[in-house]
Amino acid sequence: MSLLVVGSVALDSVKTPFGEATDVLGGSATFFSVAASYFTSVNVVATVGEDFPPEHLDFLRSRGVDVAGVETGHGKTFRWRGEYSYQLNEAKTLETQLNVFERFAPRVPEAYRSPSLVFLANIDPTLQRDVLSQVRRPKIVACDTMNFWIAGKKPELERTLKEVDILIINDGEARQLAGEANLVKASRAIMGLGPQTVIIKRGEYGALLFSGSGVFAAPAFPLEHVFDPTGAGDSFAGGFLGHLAKHPSLDRANLCKAVIFGSVLASFCVEAFSLDRFKTLTRLDIQHRYRDFKHLTFFEDVDG
Amino acid sequence: MSLLVVGSVALDSVKTPFGEATDVLGGSATFFSVAASYFTSVNVVATVGEDFPPEHLDFLRSRGVDVAGVETGHGKTFRWRGEYSYQLNEAKTLETQLNVFERFAPRVPEAYRSPSLVFLANIDPTLQRDVLSQVRRPKIVACDTMNFWIAGKKPELERTLKEVDILIINDGEARQLAGEANLVKASRAIMGLGPQTVIIKRGEYGALLFSGSGVFAAPAFPLEHVFDPTGAGDSFAGGFLGHLAKHPSLDRANLCKAVIFGSVLASFCVEAFSLDRFKTLTRLDIQHRYRDFKHLTFFEDVDG
Repeated sequence: MSLLVVGSVALDSVKTPFGEATDVLGGSATFFSVAASYFTSVNVVATVGEDFPPEHLDFLRSRGVDVAGVETGHGKTFRWRGEYSYQLNEAKTLETQLNVFERFAPRVPEAYRSPSLVFLANIDPTLQRDVLSQVRRPKIVACDTMNFWIAGKKPELERTLKEVDILIINDGEARQLAGEANLVKASRAIMGLGPQTVIIKRGEYGALLFSGSGVFAAPAFPLEHVFDPTGAGDSFAGGFLGHLAKHPSLDRANLCKAVIFGSVLASFCVEAFSLDRFKTLTRLDIQHRYRDFKHLTFFEDVDG
Repeated sequence: MSLLVVGSVALDSVKTPFGEATDVLGGSATFFSVAASYFTSVNVVATVGEDFPPEHLDFLRSRGVDVAGVETGHGKTFRWRGEYSYQLNEAKTLETQLNVFERFAPRVPEAYRSPSLVFLANIDPTLQRDVLSQVRRPKIVACDTMNFWIAGKKPELERTLKEVDILIINDGEARQLAGEANLVKASRAIMGLGPQTVIIKRGEYGALLFSGSGVFAAPAFPLEHVFDPTGAGDSFAGGFLGHLAKHPSLDRANLCKAVIFGSVLASFCVEAFSLDRFKTLTRLDIQHRYRDFKHLTFFEDVDG
């Protein structure tokens, strides 16, 4: 099934205790689409500046990602500069240069207008809704958001959420959106805003899936070498929705598998700077780590 | 198999966003032994003051816990006063009155001196080793410790760890003990100090088991009502070692089951103040929540 993502393509400068990288490929739509490309073909709507290195688009194309919807605007590419401390759990944003992203008005090409799945990455909720108005009703609409929109554009965000099936956000955002510290209660409150399914990302602690069939908990993969957490959340969403594009069912068993595939892609993402790990990652690597997740979490029945 | 625990019996005063309780039953040996009592008989070595309400010992006896090793010292019972903020993840200690616990010199009664399993709760590592010198070599020695001993008595603690099979500590303590932020590397460093098995407790995020057969990750149970996290870690240890006392094998499958039983007991502990939840908890409740943990974590194989 066809998968459409609308989000950012960026040049990131990242510093971690293990090194630093300057003006490397980043952005929510980028991590998402490359992660999802292991499962399905992906169409991207985004904007870059005139300074954007063409080899980055070549890399996306090499992964089977359709970049016809990536427009080149007048000016420079969106830039983000951040730093991680030793525990790697949260980025400290040092600088954000919106550049062309400030005037981003997503235009969905005609060829993309009948998507089966749409992922609205973290952009202004008004733009998220505008994207939905340009496409014929997809089977599944998923979205992300952030503290900035929850605090500053809550009514707009709530209008968008009415049209969303699956919300994928982190624990702090879930608490902020619901005004509730307890995640079980927070997810229920969020489900009352529209999404039937809520995925709460908890970084190094994994993810929780809340749906009509109760809760599913997936750990993050305990890695010995974590180089750069940037993009892990979008890679999670890419693995999750990539699997759903390939196996389009929202029953519990399939959603749980999708969460594990999301966790697998996130676990690879953080093993190198930028999208570097995806330059060598194979479908077989993904299957092996899925099996490693099974080993990581399996325990016998109570009477076993 | 016989299970011996040495630790504290205390009177706690706890304030959470959901209420407060003054001078209620607490202490590491208390939570541990009551949690373990659902699996096996437990012998306790501890000290209380002359002011200790006898009905608390009656409650322990009603759970089949042998309290002949609980000595009454001259003076008042160990008191701890703490407070939890809205997210309930970490206690802020407001006051500690060691009282009789300051002069605690564990004396293992003759009847307890051939234990199959020993749990050395969080006390001075010198006392932990002294306890081991009083008993015939048990099959399994497990222990807990805390930042205070890691910072102030590291050589003593390292001598104790040489005699320990299973270390059960929280993530911050593991990082501090190993001098290493990455938990995979930290656990390996700790295994180099003696314990073949390391369990890292992560509060609301669950627990990780590191052993010769790799890592096992268990989530904490997502609860809608958490009233008081005090004692959750010791209840975890009680459920974990209680299961091992009943099924004394250190193979991976059994250790993983034990971690889930520990997580089950911890999840019940936090549902009420003090040990109140254990006053009505049944073995059947435990089995049901074990099954709920299976539902919470199960996902199909990659090709399923």
